[in-house]
Amino acid sequence: MIELQKALDTVLDNTSLLGFEGVSLTRALNRVLAENITSRDNLPPFDKSAMDGYALNSAETKEGVSKFKITGSIKAGDFPKNGIKAGETVKIMTGAALPEGADAVIQIEKVKTCEDELEVCGKVNRGKNILREGEEIRKGDSVFGKGTFLRPSEIGMLASLGYSSIECYRKPKIIVITTGDELVGVDDEITGGKVRNCNEYALAALGNNLNADVKSYGVVEDNREKILNSVKNAFQEGDIVITSGGVSVGDYDFIEYVLHDIGADIKFTSVKIKPGKPITFATFKNKLFFGLPGNPLSVINTFEVFVTPAVKKMTGRKDILSEEFPVILEDDFRSKGDRDNYVYVNIEERDGKYYAHSVGSQSSNALFTLTRSNGVIIIKEGIKSVKAGDILNGKFIFK
Amino acid sequence: MIELQKALDTVLDNTSLLGFEGVSLTRALNRVLAENITSRDNLPPFDKSAMDGYALNSAETKEGVSKFKITGSIKAGDFPKNGIKAGETVKIMTGAALPEGADAVIQIEKVKTCEDELEVCGKVNRGKNILREGEEIRKGDSVFGKGTFLRPSEIGMLASLGYSSIECYRKPKIIVITTGDELVGVDDEITGGKVRNCNEYALAALGNNLNADVKSYGVVEDNREKILNSVKNAFQEGDIVITSGGVSVGDYDFIEYVLHDIGADIKFTSVKIKPGKPITFATFKNKLFFGLPGNPLSVINTFEVFVTPAVKKMTGRKDILSEEFPVILEDDFRSKGDRDNYVYVNIEERDGKYYAHSVGSQSSNALFTLTRSNGVIIIKEGIKSVKAGDILNGKFIFK
Repeated sequence: MIELQKALDTVLDNTSLLGFEGVSLTRALNRVLAENITSRDNLPPFDKSAMDGYALNSAETKEGVSKFKITGSIKAGDFPKNGIKAGETVKIMTGAALPEGADAVIQIEKVKTCEDELEVCGKVNRGKNILREGEEIRKGDSVFGKGTFLRPSEIGMLASLGYSSIECYRKPKIIVITTGDELVGVDDEITGGKVRNCNEYALAALGNNLNADVKSYGVVEDNREKILNSVKNAFQEGDIVITSGGVSVGDYDFIEYVLHDIGADIKFTSVKIKPGKPITFATFKNKLFFGLPGNPLSVINTFEVFVTPAVKKMTGRKDILSEEFPVILEDDFRSKGDRDNYVYVNIEERDGKYYAHSVGSQSSNALFTLTRSNGVIIIKEGIKSVKAGDILNGKFIFK
Repeated sequence: MIELQKALDTVLDNTSLLGFEGVSLTRALNRVLAENITSRDNLPPFDKSAMDGYALNSAETKEGVSKFKITGSIKAGDFPKNGIKAGETVKIMTGAALPEGADAVIQIEKVKTCEDELEVCGKVNRGKNILREGEEIRKGDSVFGKGTFLRPSEIGMLASLGYSSIECYRKPKIIVITTGDELVGVDDEITGGKVRNCNEYALAALGNNLNADVKSYGVVEDNREKILNSVKNAFQEGDIVITSGGVSVGDYDFIEYVLHDIGADIKFTSVKIKPGKPITFATFKNKLFFGLPGNPLSVINTFEVFVTPAVKKMTGRKDILSEEFPVILEDDFRSKGDRDNYVYVNIEERDGKYYAHSVGSQSSNALFTLTRSNGVIIIKEGIKSVKAGDILNGKFIFK
């Protein structure tokens, strides 16, 4: 049984970037850039009007009233062939290119017009309502670096820079194998000794929530040969293989044997964490294997603690570890003290402080508890009891 | 020009739940339940072992050593036909049903065995390592109410309750129409007077980020007839119609005319918000129309402030408004004071407090600024200048 931190370090030390692939911009939301993006143009690409109004030479305005002759109109998308001469102005739409000779735009709401005459009241400042060529970005400027997470704002920016397709880190393909002869399908009646298979659904959701591709092999019988074949196929097809069940000391716990059969490099089979002690981690040809326990709460907890950081690292994300912060307890909690104990709670923020209250049984079976929680507090190994008012580290889940 | 709060109230007053649809559990992640879920079974469905070990009658254990005859083995998924008699024990796997006559399980790691004899050292407590039938949930118990947001934990729980398909609130179909004769495609060179179309991509990403179905009609020419036809089609096909551009006072701003032509109920055409003042909102046959401005920062800001809450309300989410919290300024900021000013900044948390620093130009054109920000601070109407150290309300974006 190894320390949690050592186990996590081992997982991350064995996890590398998956490589990259071209992704269409329309499908790049929430992906991570695998290339450096520079601008191919000045943005804005020309001096342009920020308002609907009239383009003029500011030097021709004064205190009091100045008059101009309106000689035309420029709509957005047009490029003015002729400049304006002394005493002239042109009507200009938001986003349209400024004509030669003009250096300011006065807003349409602030002027009077009569036929082709414009009356401006007061001095207009040079540059007023003008967006200068290159004021946002200059050609050749670095815009985004590798590792940038693509939100709607970055998607829009990439479009304006002319990138319809970009290199992103590849998403991992996760293969989920569920074991346990006690499992019946979700549509089946529960008969003697059986329970419904929930881990397959929870694991697929956990993977999808990280934007990974998930494929499930369904429930595989507690039979060494059958599990071996499934795991072999999974290593061929996936980047990450996840099993649930079969990792404890029972007579039908075949995962460790199967990993030996394949020749996988088993890194650990037991970690000082509760729930989830009998978690197994192995590598095989640069692919990762997580043998998660069978109990639903243990499955989700070990996925969050070990698989989530690995997936994030593989896909180039910078926020590999979810942030821990101090949490003030509102209830007493007990622990056995033999392992780091992840206690699922509800965390609320009030006035910049976080408070945690109990939401029920922490039995590793108690998935219902998890549905009432939004976070965990961590009672460190060696501590057997904590009281309301104590401060522990906590974090939000599914982040 | 109406107040921001009045505009938002108007949007939400005109937004109702979209109705519901059956969704397969494998596709229900991040959807919202539209039915109340009760348990059809006791969970666990029978008394079962929480450990790999030996099932026995705790009354037969004592201080010192007690011996039992091992009469068999129960694996998970089996239902024991025979109980145990006095002096007997059976080996039992985690998750297996407890045999008649047993009331405790002793862990395999804590005993000695010799052929069919089990040696237990010390008294074993009644109920030890047993999960009782119904201790998590009883048949008929209410588990989730309408409006529950489905995370991986809820997906797993629904599977264990036997729900392979559930009623969820329907996702809105958003139709995006981009206008502006200055727009060229993302793959096009920028030539005189043109800029690349970025709003279409940003709007699709914003919609997808909310788990909505988004369909884009591409760029429609600044032509009243063509925009009219597009908007008509969009109202037939979508639940929400979003245009960008064409809502200001320019000669080619046709959106308001088109809404009149159709007979839409125009609720407002201008809001005291910066960026994004010329936002138009209308309803037509219970469908929503948002006429967003053409500038990229205005598009994203008005989407966040008005469209996001509407989409969340339509889909049954409880967190309709993103949470505002006090933010300490690290820079000075100026405002015109004529509208509520949304200033895009970077917000950092340190020791339970939030701090905001400037990330560049707030020109409504400056999408690049938005890519460097993770939140906004709101300088209220009437305030023209705020200083480092002042506290304003802020919030994170894209939440």
